[in-house]
Amino acid sequence: MKTNTRRLLVRTTLSCAGLFALQALAAPPAGVDARGVASIPAFTVPFSSYASAQAEKMFQRVLDEGRHAPPLNGPVAASRAYYDKINSDRARRLKKLYPVRITDRTIAGVPAQVVVPRRGVAARQKHRVLINLHGGAFLWGAGSGGLVEAIPVASVGRIKVITIDYRQGPEHVFPAASEDVAKVYRVLLKKYPATNIGIYGCSAGGVLTGEAVAWFIHVKLPVPGAIGTYCGSIAELGGESAYIAPPLSGDPPPKKPLTLAELPYFKGAKSDDPLVFPANSPKLLAKFPPTLLITGTRDFTMSSEIQSQRLLVKAGVDAELHIWDGMWHSFFSDPEMPESREAYAVMVKFFDRHLGRQP
Amino acid sequence: MKTNTRRLLVRTTLSCAGLFALQALAAPPAGVDARGVASIPAFTVPFSSYASAQAEKMFQRVLDEGRHAPPLNGPVAASRAYYDKINSDRARRLKKLYPVRITDRTIAGVPAQVVVPRRGVAARQKHRVLINLHGGAFLWGAGSGGLVEAIPVASVGRIKVITIDYRQGPEHVFPAASEDVAKVYRVLLKKYPATNIGIYGCSAGGVLTGEAVAWFIHVKLPVPGAIGTYCGSIAELGGESAYIAPPLSGDPPPKKPLTLAELPYFKGAKSDDPLVFPANSPKLLAKFPPTLLITGTRDFTMSSEIQSQRLLVKAGVDAELHIWDGMWHSFFSDPEMPESREAYAVMVKFFDRHLGRQP
Repeated sequence: MKTNTRRLLVRTTLSCAGLFALQALAAPPAGVDARGVASIPAFTVPFSSYASAQAEKMFQRVLDEGRHAPPLNGPVAASRAYYDKINSDRARRLKKLYPVRITDRTIAGVPAQVVVPRRGVAARQKHRVLINLHGGAFLWGAGSGGLVEAIPVASVGRIKVITIDYRQGPEHVFPAASEDVAKVYRVLLKKYPATNIGIYGCSAGGVLTGEAVAWFIHVKLPVPGAIGTYCGSIAELGGESAYIAPPLSGDPPPKKPLTLAELPYFKGAKSDDPLVFPANSPKLLAKFPPTLLITGTRDFTMSSEIQSQRLLVKAGVDAELHIWDGMWHSFFSDPEMPESREAYAVMVKFFDRHLGRQP
Repeated sequence: MKTNTRRLLVRTTLSCAGLFALQALAAPPAGVDARGVASIPAFTVPFSSYASAQAEKMFQRVLDEGRHAPPLNGPVAASRAYYDKINSDRARRLKKLYPVRITDRTIAGVPAQVVVPRRGVAARQKHRVLINLHGGAFLWGAGSGGLVEAIPVASVGRIKVITIDYRQGPEHVFPAASEDVAKVYRVLLKKYPATNIGIYGCSAGGVLTGEAVAWFIHVKLPVPGAIGTYCGSIAELGGESAYIAPPLSGDPPPKKPLTLAELPYFKGAKSDDPLVFPANSPKLLAKFPPTLLITGTRDFTMSSEIQSQRLLVKAGVDAELHIWDGMWHSFFSDPEMPESREAYAVMVKFFDRHLGRQP
C-alpha cells in the first residue's frame, strides 16, 4: 500500500473469484493495517444512485430537523417536546395518506392507543393484533412516536395495532419497559392466541421488541407469532455502520461509537444479560419467533441489524433482513417516499405470512 | 454544519423516532450538501467488532494476494494463471474440509465438473441438482474457480453440483455465457423437473445466474426452482458500497465506481437490456424464482445486492438477503472462517427449502 502502483494492484485483491475491472485512482493515501483497521482518506460519497428523488429531498429535511434539535445532555423535557412536535407533524401527514381511527386506552395500567383502519379490519386479520413499541432512545417518543409507527401498518395491513407508552428513562430503568409490554401482552393473551399476536418497533422500540420476547421466555409466557425489530434489534450496537453511517449523515466520524448500554434507561443493567441483549444467548434465540429486520445503509444501527439476523439464523430462526440503500435511521417515519411505502408493504406481508389466523 | 455545536446538534438528526445519545466529536469537518453528497473526512474504521478472529486473519491474506495480482489491463492469460493458482489452492483446502468426488464432463459441448459428496448424495436430494456459475469478471475462474464454489455446497448439502465453464471475455461477448447455461440446463431438464434444479454463483457468476434466468424466460424455458446470486446480482453496480467498500479494503476511494457494462464480456451489450440486467424489467422479475442474495459490508457489490433484493421483493419474488458484517467480496471462497461455514449453511438450507423433491 506504499505506491500508486501497489494500490492499483490491491484493487484486484478481492477479485479472486470476482468480477473486477480497473477503478479510477484518487489522490489520497488509503490502506488497511495488520489488524484490519482501514484508514479512510477524505472523500465524497454521492447520495445513493438507487434512492428515489423523494428520499433525496426528505434527507435534507431530516438533516435540518437535526440541526435544530436540543442538546441530548440537556433537560429531557426539551427533547420530548421537540420530538413530539416532529412526530405529531408526521402523524398528521400519515393520517391523510393512511386513514385510521385512534382510541386512547389504558391496558393493565399502561397508556395505549388503539389504531384501526378506517376502511375496517380485514376478515383475515380479525383474530390478529399487533403491538407497536415506539422509538426514542428509551427517553421520548410516547404518544405521537407510536402513532407514526402504528398508522401506516394498521392502514396498509387492515389490522388492529396497539401502540403502548412503556416506562422510559431517566425516570425508569430496565426492565420497566419489558414489564409493561408483558402486562399488555397478558391482557391480549386472554383474547388472542400468542401465535396471532405480532410485536414490532423501530430503534429503541426494535431493541425493546427483542427484550420483550426474552422477558416473555424468562417469565414463561408463550412467544408471539412473529416480531419486527427495525433500526435496532437484539444485539448491542457495533460493527462498521457505527463508524460509517455518522459521516454519511453529516456527523463527524465517532472515535468510539454509541452503545445502547450508555442510555439512561440501562443504568445498572448488564450488557451481557440476555434479557438486555438476547444476542448474548444462542439458547434463548433458538426460542425466538420469525423475525423481520429492517434498516438502511446510512443507519448507524445497520451492522447490528445484520449481526442480529446472522445470530438468529445461526440459532435456527426464520429471520428476514431488508435494507434500503442510502436510507437513514428510521427513514420510514416519513411517509412521502417510495422507500417508506415499500417498507410498510414488507412489514405487512411479513406478519400476514407468519401470524396465525384462527381464533 | 459550521461549528462544533451545530455538528453536535446534527448528531440528533436521525433520532426523531430513535435511540440516540451523544457521540464523541472528532476534529475533521464533515457535512452533507444539498444533493445528499456526504463529505467524509479522513478517519479510521476498525475491523468489524462482530467479525471472527479467523476472518481478521484471512483478510490480511486476501489483501496480500491482491498486492501481487497482475494488472487488470495486462494480458488476460496472466490474470487467468494468477487466479487459477489462488483458486487451486483454495480447492485443495476445501477438499480436505469437505470431501467430494469430482468428475470432468462435457455437457452439450460445455466443459463441466460434476461434484458429489464423498459420503453420498442424501435421499432427499436424489432428484435435485445445482448448477454453479463461477466468478471471475467474465474473464477468469474456469475450472478451479468453479470448484471453490461447488465443493462446500455439494458436501454440506449432500447434493450433486455441476459447475460449468461458460464462454467468457474477451474472446466471447454477451450472450455467449447465457447460451451456455441454457445448453446445460436443457440437458438437465430431460432428467430433472425445472423446480428441482437450482442455479447459483458468486460475483460474475451471481450476475450470470440472473441473466441466465432472464434468458430462459426469453427463450421460453421453464425457470429453475430457486437461484442464488452472491456478491453480484440482477442490478448494475452502484449505490453507496461502490464508494465505501474500496477504502475499507485498502483501495483508494473511486472517483467513478466500476460498472459491469465496462467489462470486456459486455462489449456491445446494452445496459438497459433486461437480459443483461434483469433489474431493468419489473415484469421479467415477477417471473423469477425464489432468490438468495449474499454479500458483506466490505464488498463493493453490497448496495447492488441490496437493491436487487428490493426490486425482486417489489416484483413479488421471495428474495432472501444475508450479509456478514466486515466481510469482503466473495469472502466465502476461503473456508477457514465461521462466516464462510455460516454462508454455506445458509445456501444449503435455502435450496433445500425451495427445490422440489419429487422426480
